[in-house]
Parts: sequence; C-alpha cells; structure tokens
Amino acid sequence: MADLRLRRLLPALEWLSTYRRTDVISDAMAALIVTVMLIPQSLAYAMLAGLPAEVGLYASMLPLLGYALFGSSRTLAVGPVAVASLMTAAAVSKVAEPGTDQYLAAAVILAVLSGVMLSAMAVLRLGWIANLLSHPVIAGFITASGILIATSQLKHILGISAGGHTLIEIFSQLAPQVAATHIPTLLIGLSALAFLFWARKKLKPLLQKLKLPPLAVDLLARAGPALAVILSTVVVARLNLDQQGVRVVGHVPGGLPELGVPQFDAGLWQALLVPAFLISLIGFVESVSVAQTLAARRRQQINPNHELAGLGAANIGSALSGGFPVTGGFARSVVNFDAGAVTPMAGIFTAIGIGLTTLFLTGWFTFLPNATLAATIIVAVLSLVDFGIIRRTWQYSRIDFSAMMLTMLGVFTIGVEAGVVMGVATSLLLFLWRTSSPHIAVVGQVPGTEHFRNVNRHKVITSPTVLSVRVDESLYFANARFLEDSIYKSALQNPQTRHVVLQCSAVNLIDASALESLEALSQRLQDAGIMLHLSEIKGPVMDALNKVDFVEHLSGNIYLSHYSALAELDPETTL
Amino acid sequence: MADLRLRRLLPALEWLSTYRRTDVISDAMAALIVTVMLIPQSLAYAMLAGLPAEVGLYASMLPLLGYALFGSSRTLAVGPVAVASLMTAAAVSKVAEPGTDQYLAAAVILAVLSGVMLSAMAVLRLGWIANLLSHPVIAGFITASGILIATSQLKHILGISAGGHTLIEIFSQLAPQVAATHIPTLLIGLSALAFLFWARKKLKPLLQKLKLPPLAVDLLARAGPALAVILSTVVVARLNLDQQGVRVVGHVPGGLPELGVPQFDAGLWQALLVPAFLISLIGFVESVSVAQTLAARRRQQINPNHELAGLGAANIGSALSGGFPVTGGFARSVVNFDAGAVTPMAGIFTAIGIGLTTLFLTGWFTFLPNATLAATIIVAVLSLVDFGIIRRTWQYSRIDFSAMMLTMLGVFTIGVEAGVVMGVATSLLLFLWRTSSPHIAVVGQVPGTEHFRNVNRHKVITSPTVLSVRVDESLYFANARFLEDSIYKSALQNPQTRHVVLQCSAVNLIDASALESLEALSQRLQDAGIMLHLSEIKGPVMDALNKVDFVEHLSGNIYLSHYSALAELDPETTL
Repeated sequence: MADLRLRRLLPALEWLSTYRRTDVISDAMAALIVTVMLIPQSLAYAMLAGLPAEVGLYASMLPLLGYALFGSSRTLAVGPVAVASLMTAAAVSKVAEPGTDQYLAAAVILAVLSGVMLSAMAVLRLGWIANLLSHPVIAGFITASGILIATSQLKHILGISAGGHTLIEIFSQLAPQVAATHIPTLLIGLSALAFLFWARKKLKPLLQKLKLPPLAVDLLARAGPALAVILSTVVVARLNLDQQGVRVVGHVPGGLPELGVPQFDAGLWQALLVPAFLISLIGFVESVSVAQTLAARRRQQINPNHELAGLGAANIGSALSGGFPVTGGFARSVVNFDAGAVTPMAGIFTAIGIGLTTLFLTGWFTFLPNATLAATIIVAVLSLVDFGIIRRTWQYSRIDFSAMMLTMLGVFTIGVEAGVVMGVATSLLLFLWRTSSPHIAVVGQVPGTEHFRNVNRHKVITSPTVLSVRVDESLYFANARFLEDSIYKSALQNPQTRHVVLQCSAVNLIDASALESLEALSQRLQDAGIMLHLSEIKGPVMDALNKVDFVEHLSGNIYLSHYSALAELDPETTL
Repeated sequence: MADLRLRRLLPALEWLSTYRRTDVISDAMAALIVTVMLIPQSLAYAMLAGLPAEVGLYASMLPLLGYALFGSSRTLAVGPVAVASLMTAAAVSKVAEPGTDQYLAAAVILAVLSGVMLSAMAVLRLGWIANLLSHPVIAGFITASGILIATSQLKHILGISAGGHTLIEIFSQLAPQVAATHIPTLLIGLSALAFLFWARKKLKPLLQKLKLPPLAVDLLARAGPALAVILSTVVVARLNLDQQGVRVVGHVPGGLPELGVPQFDAGLWQALLVPAFLISLIGFVESVSVAQTLAARRRQQINPNHELAGLGAANIGSALSGGFPVTGGFARSVVNFDAGAVTPMAGIFTAIGIGLTTLFLTGWFTFLPNATLAATIIVAVLSLVDFGIIRRTWQYSRIDFSAMMLTMLGVFTIGVEAGVVMGVATSLLLFLWRTSSPHIAVVGQVPGTEHFRNVNRHKVITSPTVLSVRVDESLYFANARFLEDSIYKSALQNPQTRHVVLQCSAVNLIDASALESLEALSQRLQDAGIMLHLSEIKGPVMDALNKVDFVEHLSGNIYLSHYSALAELDPETTL
C-alpha cells in the first residue's frame, strides 16, 4: 500500500524500477542532441527575458531533474521557453529596472511563485482550471506572442538600442533609430537568419545524402543554432568586431549555480502573484498538450495532476538555482522524442550536459554576438505563428474568432498579460451569452401515445388551458432569468391559460439561481392566476429540491410523468 | 410605422396616450407618500456617500423624470439607494478626499459614466450581461453591504469621528474612540433608532385603531423617518445641542440645482470606469427584479432593455443636475405601488415634491442631527440583511453557498467592489468546474431494436471491438479536454477496441475548442490503432463542421444513425 502511494506520488519510481541498459543508450543519445539544441536556446531565452546569459543555463539543470522525478510524461523536455520568457520580461520589468540585481531577484521570485502555485494546484487537483483557456484564446495568444517576440528581437539584428512591451511601443522606439543601424551587426544577424532558415529545411536532407550515420545526421541536423553560434563567435573574435560596436554576450561566469532560497519581500511577491499565475496557466496548458500528443504516439498516458506536480518541482528547482520560470518546450520535446528518448532519464542526462557546459564552456560565449541569439529566437518563434488556425477559426465560428482576435489585440496593444485576461474574459462572456437563452420547446401530445413532442415539428394535440413546455438544458444562473421571462411571456400570450407544466426530463441541474427564478416564476404566474407545475424531474435534482421548501412554495404540483400532469389538469383534451 | 418605432423607444408615449383624470389623483396621492419618505432618505444616502445633503435632493428630481420617459415599469421609484451610495463612497474616496470639490466632481462623473454605460447596454441589447451575477452572489452581496453600511453608521450614533471601507477598518477605527462617545448624540441616535423600529412595526396598526382615513394612515405610517427628522431637529434647535457638540447637517443651500455638463478629466474617468460598471450592473439587477415583481402583480410586463434605457436616462439626469448614481429602490417602489401609483407620472409628481422641498424647506435641515440620518439608514438597510437566504442556500447547495460566502467575505474584508468581482469570478469558476466533466455514458444496443441505452442501467448488447459512447452535453471549451481524455482512456481499457463511435444526439454545439479536441482525439486514437466515428449529429452542428475540413481529418466516418454505424463496423454482434 505504502509503496503504491509513493509510486502515485513519484512517477519516477515506476520507470526506474524497470530501467534497462539499452534504455541508458537511447536516453543518452537523445540527451546529447537535446543538449546541443538547448545551449543556444538557454542563452537566447535568458536574453529575451532581459536576464544574464548564465541564468538561462541555470534554468536548464535542476528543473529537468525536478520534472524527471514528479512529471508523468516520458519524453517532455522542460526548460526556458519563448513565451514564458516574454511573459517574465513583461512582469519583471514592471517592478524592477532591467540589468539590476532587483530584476534578477524578481525573476527568481516569479519562478518560485509559479512553482508553488503549480504544486498547490497539483495537491488540490485543480488541473481542470486549464479549461479557463479555450483553444482559440491559446492559439491567438501563442501566435500573437510569437509575432511580438520576433519583432522585439529586431533591435538586436539591427544593432540599435530600443525597448517596449507592445507592438506599438516597439515600432515607435525602433522607427527613429533605423538610420543608426550598425552594419556589421546587421550582416551577422542576416547571415545567421539565412543560415538558420536554410538549416531548418535543407540540412537534414543534405546530411542524409552524404550518407552519414543516422546518429550523426540527427545530431548535426539539430545543431544549426549551435553551428551559427560557433561560426559567428569565431568571426567576431577573429575580426575584433566587438571593439567595432557589435554587441556580444560578454563575460559569462562559469561554475554551477549556488543554491539559495529566494529573498522574501511581501510587496514584490504580491505584485508578481497574478503574472505568476498566468505564466503557470499558459505553461501548464502548453506543456500538457505537448506531453499528450507525444504520449499518444506510444499509447502512454499523461496524468494532468502529475504534470502540475512535475512543472511545480521544475520551477521550484529553477528558483533554488537562481533561474527563471520554465515549462515544457514543444520543439525540444519533439526532438527528444524523435531522437529516441524512452524515459525522463534523458532529461537528467541533458541536465548533466548543461552542467558540464556551465563548468567548462562558458568562456566561449564571451564573443557570441547578441544578433546570433536574436536570429535563433526569431527562427524558433516563427514556428509558433499559425495563421492557418486563425483562418480556420474564422470559417468555423465567428464567436470563437472574436475571442481569438481580442486576445491577439490585447497582446499587441496592451501586453501579454492583458491579452490572456482579455481572452479568458471574452470567452467566458461569449459562452454566457451563447447559453443565456436555452432551447425551450412548447410540446404537445403525440396522438394515441403518452409521448410529448415539439409543436413546431410534429402533429400533436395541445390543451387550450395547459401550456406544456420542455427545456433542453440544465437551469443555472446564466439562463435562469431568460427562462423565467420567456415562460412567463408564453403563458400570458393565451388568456385562456390556467396551468403551465415544465417538462424537466433534460434538466441535469437546478442551481440556487434557477431555484429562485422558478419560485419567482411561480409567484408571478400565480399573481396572474396561473399555476406552475413540474414534471419528470430527475432523481438527484428532486433530492436537492427536497432539501428546501421549494415544493411548498410552488403554486402547482410535481408529476412523475408529463402525461399524468396533463391527464389531471385537462382530462377533456388529453387522450 | 414611425409612430410604432417612437413608442418602442419611449414607453412613456404608451401610458400618456391613455392617461385619465382618475389616474392623476392616484398618482398624486402615491407621490405625496413617496415624497415624505424620500426626503429623509435622500439626505441620509447623500451622507452615506460622503456628499453634501443637497446632492441627495438633486439626485431625486431629474432622474425620476428620465426614468418616467424611458423606463418600462409603471411603478418603479428611482433615486439614491443605500448600496449604490456605499459603492459611490468606496469608489470616489479612492480618487479624492471627502469634502473636497474634487470628491463631488468624481461622484457626478460616476453618475454620468453609469448613465452612459446603461444607455449603451440598452442600445446594444446587453441586458443578458446581468446573468454574470448569480442569485447567491447578489443575495450575499446585498446582505454583506447592509451589514457594512449599518456598521459604518455607528460613528454617527456614537458621535465620534472614524472612517474605513471594510468591517476591519471600521472596527479598528471605532474601537479606540468608544470611550469618547458623545452622550447627547448617542441619546438622540438611540431614541431615533428606537422610534424608527417601533414606527416600522407598530405605527400603522396604531393609526388604523385610531380610525383615521386610509390616506392619512398610509401617509403617516410612511412618515416615521420624516417625524424622527422633525422631532430631533426641533430638540437640537431648542436646546442648542449643536453648540454642545451634536453634529448636524448644517447649512443646506436652497434652490434648484444648476444644470451643467460634468467636467472631463481623462484620468479620473478611466479610474472610475470599473466602479461605474459594477454600480450599473448591481443597480440594474436589483432594479429589474423589483420592477418585475411589481409588474407581475398587475399582469404587466417589463422590458429589460427599456429598464437599461430608463436607468441610463436617470443617471445622466442625475449627473446633469450635480447628483450621484441612482437606481430603483426596493422599499420606495413597494410603497409607491401599494399607495396606488398607476403610471410613472407618480414619479414626476414626486420629483416636483422634492423640487418644492429644495426650493422652500432646506432651511429646516440646518439643525437636523447626523445621528437621526444614521438611524434612518440603519433601519432601512437592516431590511436588506437576509440570513434566511444564507441558511437556505447552505441547505440547497454547498457550491452556491461557497460563492455566496466568498462574496460576503470580499465585501467585509476588501471592499464592495472586490466583493462583487470575487463573487462573479467564483460563480464562473464553480460553474466551469461543475460542467468540466459532463455525463458520458457507454451505451449498448437494446435487443431487437435500433435503440441504444446506458450499459449501467439496461440489459444491452455491446460489441467487443466497437466502443459506443453517448455525451449528454454540448461540447465546448470547459469540457472539451475532459471529454478527449476520458474517451481516450475508455478506448484504451479494452485492448480489443478498434472503433469508437460517439453518439451526438444531445450535442447542441461543438465550439472551436471542442473541434480541436475531437481532432486531437481522432489523432491520438489513430496513433493507438483505433478509429473515431460520430453518429446522429444535429443539422446545425453538421453545417458548422462542414465549413472546415473536419470530416477529412476524422479517422473514421459520420453516420446518420448509431445503429447504422454499428451495423457497418461490427455486423456480427449487431442484431
């Protein structure tokens, strides 16, 4: 029993108990490829978040161990990702100046908050909260963020100084300085962009044509960014371009990060609560969808609560080692999967690879030009931009499309956080609007049977004094008022009406608002000389109604079948 | 046609065209009673909002005219009300110091914003937005506000200076000063409270026993607050108690308000947008529910969009005459109705009565003690406090109860605005949680028929290779992921499963999120060697699916009937 409970807590025990020698080789090979891909990405996303380069490496070690222990996906690769880095920059720059110790401290606090929230959600089994984010909102958010990130990197390609957290700010700061473009930087940036776009499409086929061994093909095909980093670093170092104004990463301190507890500052923690929640939510949704896609290909399963725990541990790990918020990355996980990773041990090997890099290779990054990192980011995020889904949503549903557009508009004009909040608010409002008027059918008796059907679709018998109404939806706060009004109006249309019978066969829930509305309806109808009856109430709904004095407040009766109601209230018409 | 359209715009044309001499008398009598009740209330609610006494009178003239022209209720009485006054104080004191011109200007801006929002909602037919507020949230909010208001008035009864916008703030500011209680003020306050509570219950029976004419009984029974005002004013003036520290209303400038456009200050307007929206929403919901209750008693109808327009006009009218946000008052409207008002002309007569008061009677208010106004407020708001509904909600549904409690907690500890927002957020979240796992039934064939029923409830035939699933809810973002996961899991339980058929007979909507989930499910199942089919899709849902390439992405087929699906996929088992 205890063992079972522990296994449920630590999914790692599951795969560790059956870990074989052949698995070691598969995982190590995958880890090698992911490490080569992750090094430039770590540096680049740290730059995107406005943090020193080494912080990107720190965020790529402990988090991988944390996820490996608690996460349920066998192949998800966690670490710094583009969207979370952008959101980190947006949140942290509101409370601290970029480049200061305070800024770094705030990023670490963001990671610890995010980690604690994700862990708490795991304990409370709040995975369903991801439902707040509808697909169109997520798709709109990711695409808009991709465009915003790519745009924000143009300054590095052009070699000019500019800032801004919205499209408008970025363009208005870029525009007056375009004339000051630094030509050597631009040449490096454009070359890197061209090389990366080429490598993305053409490198693998080329390597295959060269008949290299499969592992070498896989490794080199993913090494595009690493090659760009090496080549541009060599060029800058040889030609002393850094002394001619090409901005470089500069000194990156070597050695493993010191572990430490993030500083506690109540004001700062409070200011970062909402951003941390949004980063957690977006990160969780993205991560789970990647994990599920990959798990399905091997008929494996993902447990959303374990994913919350895994991502929570990853972020707490990041914070303890001085890193910033992390989550599961799409491209990285696919590479890990395709390269043959079979267990999260691949993640642990990757962490070791990054650790070795931090110990021995940081000296090489001094002359690495920012423009190359910016090119890496642009190529990576443009794969997030998906205009197809926008067109498709437009075709499928104008309502979903408007939620998507408002999300994108929010991201472009106010910022990433506003975008998410606007998207969530819009989808909830539109959903309320959609369901605020449920389908209500006036029904009549099918001749010769005890069945009742919609009068508009079937030839049925209706009573002159009894109005029979069927509601095809649960009754709750969003539709309670509409129901009250529309039944009241229908009842008053015919002055002969003396009874209204509500057929509740499709009603799975009557919440407290609908209860009040039914009582108000009963009272309003009674004031107008009409009795309200209910029929065919489901068991659990009736149980709830019996907990309060509803039946005594109802002007009419409750009938087991709609037929028995009609037989009693209008025996002359009823067959 | 043009005439009809005008009538639809101005409901006043409807009742004006049939207005009779007898109506004049009924309306005038009702107006007299309401005026006597409204004068002390106007002064008291202005004090509650932190505004000069005359502003309460200004807010009780033009708004009544505005509502009479555009509103659809025949008997709703609008003007300053307790909850809106509390919300005004909370919102305005965040942007200005009480007692300053800026404070008054902000209150006027709040009224104009509220008026413009309500009018815009009327034009856009956004009445359904009131659905955001579930009954438990409203009930919790009103009760908590009542308690908060009553508590906030204790300082006037005790004759001490204190402030605070939450229970905690109020008590922590009151506690250290209780020793400084001003005894003469306390005596006036307690006497007024005792008299008002007595008058509320016992005055009418007493007057009836005295065999006074019915109109006199009605008038005097409602004059409790007015009598308390007169008596305490006389006592203070005669005994010069104002010079001994009893705080009084002081000089109230006479004369009608000057009409003017509120000042425009972009920053101030923006800061007051959210409070104005919340005040409008709460005011609208309360007002409509009063209007509907009264209309039903005379078999009349209320049009929510006209109510929006009427309240919009009332608030714009209030702002133009230097007043603060107004809405329909519950007690006042019931009095108006009971006193025999037949048309909104009663409101116009009431406005004239308040106008005459403002012209000729303001001199009498100089010695009116604040303690009497506070007593008026306390007695009025305690009728808002309803513990019965709290107990009842607890009995009926723990979920609705928790939304109610969070709303009350928000009001008590953070403030009125936070209370509303927390309540709305909680009910939406709880609703999402409730619907995030819809009822999904595995179904089988009823022997000898083409019908399929839940395997847990009926003796049915199931196929070893085909899993038949019926979903009893529309598919949308809140339940799409759950559906995807649970069907995927069910399909994988039995290794023999080769097909899954989703019976969609109860699905009224598939939104873009559910569309993505269905495609993802199809892909995940296909990766596991299982085909996904759909059956019995409703016409409008199929039309939407046909707008995009869903059918091509679906691994399986779409069948008109569930039986035909089974007959094709597993002809051996199917009968």
